[in-house]
Amino acid sequence: MSKALVLMSGGLDSTTVATYAKSRGDEIFGLSFNYGQRHVIEMESSRRVAERLGVERKVINIDMRQIGSSSLTSESEVDEGSVNREGIPNTYVPGRNIIFLSIAGALADIKGASKIYIGVNSVDYSGYPDCRPDFIGSMQNTLRLGLANGPSSNLSIIAPLQKLSKAEIVRMGTELGAPYELTYSCYRGGTKSCGHCDSCLLRLKGFMEAGIEDPLQYIEYPDFYLDFLKRKKK
Amino acid sequence: MSKALVLMSGGLDSTTVATYAKSRGDEIFGLSFNYGQRHVIEMESSRRVAERLGVERKVINIDMRQIGSSSLTSESEVDEGSVNREGIPNTYVPGRNIIFLSIAGALADIKGASKIYIGVNSVDYSGYPDCRPDFIGSMQNTLRLGLANGPSSNLSIIAPLQKLSKAEIVRMGTELGAPYELTYSCYRGGTKSCGHCDSCLLRLKGFMEAGIEDPLQYIEYPDFYLDFLKRKKK
Repeated sequence: MSKALVLMSGGLDSTTVATYAKSRGDEIFGLSFNYGQRHVIEMESSRRVAERLGVERKVINIDMRQIGSSSLTSESEVDEGSVNREGIPNTYVPGRNIIFLSIAGALADIKGASKIYIGVNSVDYSGYPDCRPDFIGSMQNTLRLGLANGPSSNLSIIAPLQKLSKAEIVRMGTELGAPYELTYSCYRGGTKSCGHCDSCLLRLKGFMEAGIEDPLQYIEYPDFYLDFLKRKKK
Repeated sequence: MSKALVLMSGGLDSTTVATYAKSRGDEIFGLSFNYGQRHVIEMESSRRVAERLGVERKVINIDMRQIGSSSLTSESEVDEGSVNREGIPNTYVPGRNIIFLSIAGALADIKGASKIYIGVNSVDYSGYPDCRPDFIGSMQNTLRLGLANGPSSNLSIIAPLQKLSKAEIVRMGTELGAPYELTYSCYRGGTKSCGHCDSCLLRLKGFMEAGIEDPLQYIEYPDFYLDFLKRKKK
């Protein structure tokens, strides 16, 4: 049994990863970042997911608004969603995963953990460069070189969703019993999910393609998901 | 003229680097971290150094005490200094440079900077793994891969002190006119430097070996430095 940190945002991907890591029998420790995101409801979701999974969780406060330049941490409008976006959307916080993984590395060093699980994904990854496999490999090398001796000098960054589509992620999590009803994905941060931002569209498309109904409540479903629900009821 | 960030801690090394970067004619932007260090007097030093060099400076607040495990960010005692230490001293904040460089990378991305200057040093480096050249090279690669397009995709981490002894650093800075009288190095964080912690000993040894008097005031000089002052007065 080895010690592992799991980055837990309260979203669908990281909840799938936490459920997966738990199922592997590692000693799991959750890590959430309160980074000034407009959707603070995420923090409540990750707290509830950790509680459900029986995982101890630590919250690190780092205000990314000091760094700036993202609609997720400012008052600017979130772009209307697109399932097939070209280029980098305005929800991009530059270097967010670099910063999160650096801090996770430091904590892994202190706790004697040899693994960091993260829910990055390069298929439906919305164009973020710090989700790519070559980035993750280089980050792992950097942490091994930059941390002290002990288990962290052989630290692995494990990204089990790296090559999965959103539909495959939903299927995997559903099979493992991931508590999707406690998750939160919407970029707009309301109590109910909007159903129209990039994140909601990607999530609903994933559930649809997996043939599974999303347990979350939405203000309004996009047409493709309404069609799916109709087909499912037949 | 290219844009460059310079990590400025208010200490001797980073002040040498900032003076050097300024002398190269780049458009310099200073970056200081308020990370819960017990020696907050550093922040005042870096502010004064930036002002003297005519450099705009940004302070990022990130409380490393959330991560823990260093006498520099806790109430535990700083180890009595040693000039020839084996292993990693208890002033080590794991992953500090990884975290600082990640944040610097994000800011470089936003500002369109193509260089980050940092005063790490692998000769008199006090045993910190995140000061080694192979770590710096890997970190540069990680930032290039993890950041968006533009100048940051070809970002360089420049560590001009990497292979210099403290004496060589002092000579270099003195030739370039680095304002050493405004710097602060002591781990104990008093108004006057203690003269006995690792950092004071390393600094005074460097000045001694460079044959230059340290302009700072100390509570008590170590014997080797008193001998140096006596020899110098003859």
